[in-house]
Amino acid sequence: MTASDTVTACVVVIGNEVLSGRTRDANLQFLAAGLGEIGVRVAEARVIPDDRAVIVATVNACRARFDYVFTTGGIGPTHDDITAACIAEAFGVPLERNAEAVAMLRSHYENPADLNEARLKMADIPAGAVLIENPVSKAPGFQLGNVFVLAGIPRIVEAMFGSLKHRLSGGAPLLSRTISAHLVEGALAPGLSALQDRFADVEVGSYPYFHSGQLGVSVVLRSTEAARLDAAAGALEELIRGLGGEPIEGGRNGGGDGGGSSAPA
Amino acid sequence: MTASDTVTACVVVIGNEVLSGRTRDANLQFLAAGLGEIGVRVAEARVIPDDRAVIVATVNACRARFDYVFTTGGIGPTHDDITAACIAEAFGVPLERNAEAVAMLRSHYENPADLNEARLKMADIPAGAVLIENPVSKAPGFQLGNVFVLAGIPRIVEAMFGSLKHRLSGGAPLLSRTISAHLVEGALAPGLSALQDRFADVEVGSYPYFHSGQLGVSVVLRSTEAARLDAAAGALEELIRGLGGEPIEGGRNGGGDGGGSSAPA
Repeated sequence: MTASDTVTACVVVIGNEVLSGRTRDANLQFLAAGLGEIGVRVAEARVIPDDRAVIVATVNACRARFDYVFTTGGIGPTHDDITAACIAEAFGVPLERNAEAVAMLRSHYENPADLNEARLKMADIPAGAVLIENPVSKAPGFQLGNVFVLAGIPRIVEAMFGSLKHRLSGGAPLLSRTISAHLVEGALAPGLSALQDRFADVEVGSYPYFHSGQLGVSVVLRSTEAARLDAAAGALEELIRGLGGEPIEGGRNGGGDGGGSSAPA
Repeated sequence: MTASDTVTACVVVIGNEVLSGRTRDANLQFLAAGLGEIGVRVAEARVIPDDRAVIVATVNACRARFDYVFTTGGIGPTHDDITAACIAEAFGVPLERNAEAVAMLRSHYENPADLNEARLKMADIPAGAVLIENPVSKAPGFQLGNVFVLAGIPRIVEAMFGSLKHRLSGGAPLLSRTISAHLVEGALAPGLSALQDRFADVEVGSYPYFHSGQLGVSVVLRSTEAARLDAAAGALEELIRGLGGEPIEGGRNGGGDGGGSSAPA
């Protein structure tokens, strides 16, 4: 399914609050959709605790396996913000007070006395890293090799992604079409399997939903080739009509199987 | 931070739709909170694609490292539902049509002809597995060794968790208290670091939020010992008052840093 020229990414969510269930992560969905648009495919994500050894091992495993790694969380001023130190350790470089980062932080505090030692910790960056601007609250993220280190607060992640996007080189973006029908998945399954065989180069995903008392299936077709996508969509519409259903372009996008919000991909 | 008698779990979310950003996963938060209540700590989560080799390798790596593994997704009737076959491969056992599972499916379809071959695929279960009842739509999950295989639809995951919970043996549940204040994190940081040093056995997490134009911090204290938790909470309240703030029990639970809903842990 994955062409050899596919550009891949891994998202590493760092935070006890996600693993305890206190917080529902929002950054993976945002990054996955944003990266997909520029032809970078999130091939895996991991959620790990605020634990030095785990962070170092995970970052080193993932940066060797994927074209890009994006971490979120753990770059604030408190004792539990250990991501920068862990990235330095993973790369075997020192953590240094970064003059450019100090200047960014200074621009944020009217009273220089407010820039206390805890806040200055946010300017401690692994040697050799390139900063990622943070238009929201100034404390920057950074890039070291193929690893991009971002904040945990979704609004800041979104702003930082805007600042770093131009540094990424994607492959052909994966195009998608979603076609839904008020049919049950079990009825559609045999025809869908034949469709996948016929269009081996198109990814065919089937997502049942149950909404407002109505059962249905959203079928997501994905391919880098628009013509193949349209051909598969035509065949799918024919299949749905043959089963007595009515194809709905788009339909319940992102709803039923994940219980939440939706995104374009 | 992790005692040796800690019982750990890994949640493996299987699904291209989560990695493409189409769907925002809801199952990790539910499982993390539910497992936490019975003293099982989710120590890591992974989101992986509907890819045979990746599923087999991930399940084998995780079942060796954690006490329990919970997978979600990929057990429906369509061609892209490959989880059961992958679990069989991971354990080196055959995939067999399970008579008990067939009976469960039969109870769901009024017309026996509706139980077509695609639907019967949902009764193909690795040899030696114990079924997990699905009160919502009958197609069961299953347990093989320390691996629990669940559906992807959140409503079914919740129902299946109710069916399997009694099979788990947890350690001491991690108790938590959240105390918030309208202070900025940078001001609280030095005192919080001293608090963590003083209460090394209590996990002290700091989560800034920005909500309705107001900046604040939620501090989450976690420990298996209620007395230690209360002592740390007392010291934290003192710290907040010393900085001119007013401690708020609970406060913005789960809000600011994850952009979403909240949970008790």
